[in-house]
Amino acid sequence: MQTPASPARPLVFYFDFISPYGYFAALRIEEIAARHGRTVDWQAMLLGVSVLKVMGLKSLVDTPLKGDYVRRDVRRHFRKLGISSHRDVDAPVMNPLPAARALHWVKQHHPTLAGPLALALYDAYWCEGADLSTAAAICAAAQARGLAVPDLADAIESKEAADLLRAAVNASLKTGIFGSPTVVVDGEPFWGFDRLDELEQWLAKGAW
Amino acid sequence: MQTPASPARPLVFYFDFISPYGYFAALRIEEIAARHGRTVDWQAMLLGVSVLKVMGLKSLVDTPLKGDYVRRDVRRHFRKLGISSHRDVDAPVMNPLPAARALHWVKQHHPTLAGPLALALYDAYWCEGADLSTAAAICAAAQARGLAVPDLADAIESKEAADLLRAAVNASLKTGIFGSPTVVVDGEPFWGFDRLDELEQWLAKGAW
Repeated sequence: MQTPASPARPLVFYFDFISPYGYFAALRIEEIAARHGRTVDWQAMLLGVSVLKVMGLKSLVDTPLKGDYVRRDVRRHFRKLGISSHRDVDAPVMNPLPAARALHWVKQHHPTLAGPLALALYDAYWCEGADLSTAAAICAAAQARGLAVPDLADAIESKEAADLLRAAVNASLKTGIFGSPTVVVDGEPFWGFDRLDELEQWLAKGAW
Repeated sequence: MQTPASPARPLVFYFDFISPYGYFAALRIEEIAARHGRTVDWQAMLLGVSVLKVMGLKSLVDTPLKGDYVRRDVRRHFRKLGISSHRDVDAPVMNPLPAARALHWVKQHHPTLAGPLALALYDAYWCEGADLSTAAAICAAAQARGLAVPDLADAIESKEAADLLRAAVNASLKTGIFGSPTVVVDGEPFWGFDRLDELEQWLAKGAW
């Protein structure tokens, strides 16, 4: 009797909506997963808010020297992609909690909509410069992209959504996730959108 | 009368001997430069010692969460390159001043030996696990690779070498250099050894 082949595990994609590098990776991750017979587990995190405290760090743009580089690098990458962003890297960041709660609630109740919702919110935040810190803004951004998610507005403010996000953040900290984006493939973490090519090498070779 | 074409400017390669990512980049930088008709300006820095203070940061391996990732990532990359490193990422780092002073003095007096010396010291430190914190150890590492640098031992302890390094570090801080490796091409900085492919795209396209 043959042991059935275990199905390929999803790429666990940890990101923060306020992270431009998370956005750059989000634009590629579904295509990468598809090329290697994988799916994407979209894990919205609060890496720019809560994890930096654990690490004892300032935000990227507030770190001397590195801040100037990051500003330049992010603008350079938007140019490379041909995307005109209406959000300045220096603009105050939104409260990422409602968007992250929305994502985790949608994963639970409408799993096929999680990826499209993440990309819709990311586009709205980074391209249009939308403020997604309210349930109304999040629903409007989803609807503008043709995403109808039943009960989303109420869900974002529900205890269930808050609990789902809290559990996900705690689990990610235990796994050692600290930066956006991080992709975990079969237990192996790759941090940084500039590691996506290496991630693909890993997927193709199955380790080295 | 034609204006003569200005010669292509060197790739300014900022690195720290105690930085494994600097080593990974050092192994590729001459080949990249040659492919694009450039030379390499080897700039030994003290990024792991002095610049982190300016930035208010701990060292990579001492930063919670990130430290564990870096340990794993560095070992993974040595495996990928097929290099057996006899230095543990967690081992105490050497005092990088003598090696950096040696490099800057050699640049001044024997410029064609700067690249070979940098690679010799990097190999000795990261592959063999040598401690290069004394002039004698630095000269031995150079000689073991067939590099005969006249007067090197005395030079490492000279005021001239100390002054050259200090001036280079001050200039790099003014330029905004904060991490090892950083490559500056025609004024444009690329930080991280995982940006070398992007650097090559930039060299080929001349900006975007």
